[in-house]
Amino acid sequence: MIITSLENQKVKLLLKLDSTKNRKKEKKFIVEGKHLVDEARKKGVLLEAYSLEEKDGYIALSKEIMKKICNTDTVVTEIGLCKIVESTTLSDKLLILDGVQDPGNMGALMRSSKAFGFDTIIIGNGSCDIYNDKVIRASQGAIFKLSFIHADLLEIIPKLSVYDVYGTNVVNGIELDNVEKKNKMAIVLGNEGNGISKEVQEILKKNIYIPMSNTESLNVSVAGSIIMYKLRNN
Amino acid sequence: MIITSLENQKVKLLLKLDSTKNRKKEKKFIVEGKHLVDEARKKGVLLEAYSLEEKDGYIALSKEIMKKICNTDTVVTEIGLCKIVESTTLSDKLLILDGVQDPGNMGALMRSSKAFGFDTIIIGNGSCDIYNDKVIRASQGAIFKLSFIHADLLEIIPKLSVYDVYGTNVVNGIELDNVEKKNKMAIVLGNEGNGISKEVQEILKKNIYIPMSNTESLNVSVAGSIIMYKLRNN
Repeated sequence: MIITSLENQKVKLLLKLDSTKNRKKEKKFIVEGKHLVDEARKKGVLLEAYSLEEKDGYIALSKEIMKKICNTDTVVTEIGLCKIVESTTLSDKLLILDGVQDPGNMGALMRSSKAFGFDTIIIGNGSCDIYNDKVIRASQGAIFKLSFIHADLLEIIPKLSVYDVYGTNVVNGIELDNVEKKNKMAIVLGNEGNGISKEVQEILKKNIYIPMSNTESLNVSVAGSIIMYKLRNN
Repeated sequence: MIITSLENQKVKLLLKLDSTKNRKKEKKFIVEGKHLVDEARKKGVLLEAYSLEEKDGYIALSKEIMKKICNTDTVVTEIGLCKIVESTTLSDKLLILDGVQDPGNMGALMRSSKAFGFDTIIIGNGSCDIYNDKVIRASQGAIFKLSFIHADLLEIIPKLSVYDVYGTNVVNGIELDNVEKKNKMAIVLGNEGNGISKEVQEILKKNIYIPMSNTESLNVSVAGSIIMYKLRNN
């Protein structure tokens, strides 16, 4: 049987998950494409899988319904309904995001985090929703290989006393090449336009800066990735 | 006098420049916002400046016309008509792009190129148009501080014999930490999905790879930026 009605309860839920608010409320999100559905299954967060055709382990949706659910121009042949799992443990290397807004930057940072062993990402208020379809696409599956903690940074950063926590700011900054590598380190990245918020900056004791030509600046996902590359465990 | 008619010849030209084809034909492009107009003026490529109000050195456009020309949701108060200038000289460090498609990646790479002294970018066929409004926005003005050469990579790369030219590929790759820094170096980056094209890969003698966790991969602007950071002149 192929579901063709927009009034179907399952379809109604899938459509609702287009908004950040509903994803948060339902603790569920959607991934598009076979690769991501498989990754979600591996990670154990796949609740239901949907495809355009009737096959084992999948619920079938009509093409029209699938189109309504997905936000891509290309035809998506399968999607997965996944549960949001919040982490409670911290990896040795942490990435902390204070208002990173662009989904492409968020996805790129996830790939770099995983590649360089920053396996837990702490997401502060004002950052973009990591379960946004654009973020998931840009993360290329890295979203299923990382742990996430949503927190008020003003509350959680002071508790990270066993970590060397660095902001990213030229002012009072240590040049990246001179930063001492430690086992437990955390890097705080700020908003694309405004950097780290004033309140968070005030509780950070140390900053890193990347040496570069005068007056230039880097994209936040680039800057964060260069720092993670440099401070990774070999 | 404020221009209010879509039939005005200047307005017609500005509207035409929304397409890559017309930008190429007219050798002109548009930048949005005071910051970029000022940068274009500094660089000497500003042909005309337009604003919402009548003032010295500006041609005034009605809000409706300005909206039609710009692609942003926010109100743009001034735009600049700029000429496309193709470079003929090469900097010591070169970035070579073989099919980088995403405007955000292209803009981020420009910022990193400038920041790390890769002052000439060679753009191969199949890369996205650098005069696209999204690229210009993402470049944050770096587009006016770099030189660009559009070329067939199969023709230009063999001519770069005084440069150490590196592809980016794990296969037959040298780990980034072990790459010998030279004065004249060129880095080739490939397409987001497919990497460097087969034809270009065949004429590259050396490759760089970035050490990372198994099975992971990086966003192309991140990978290129890490390499440029590492190989910059100090």
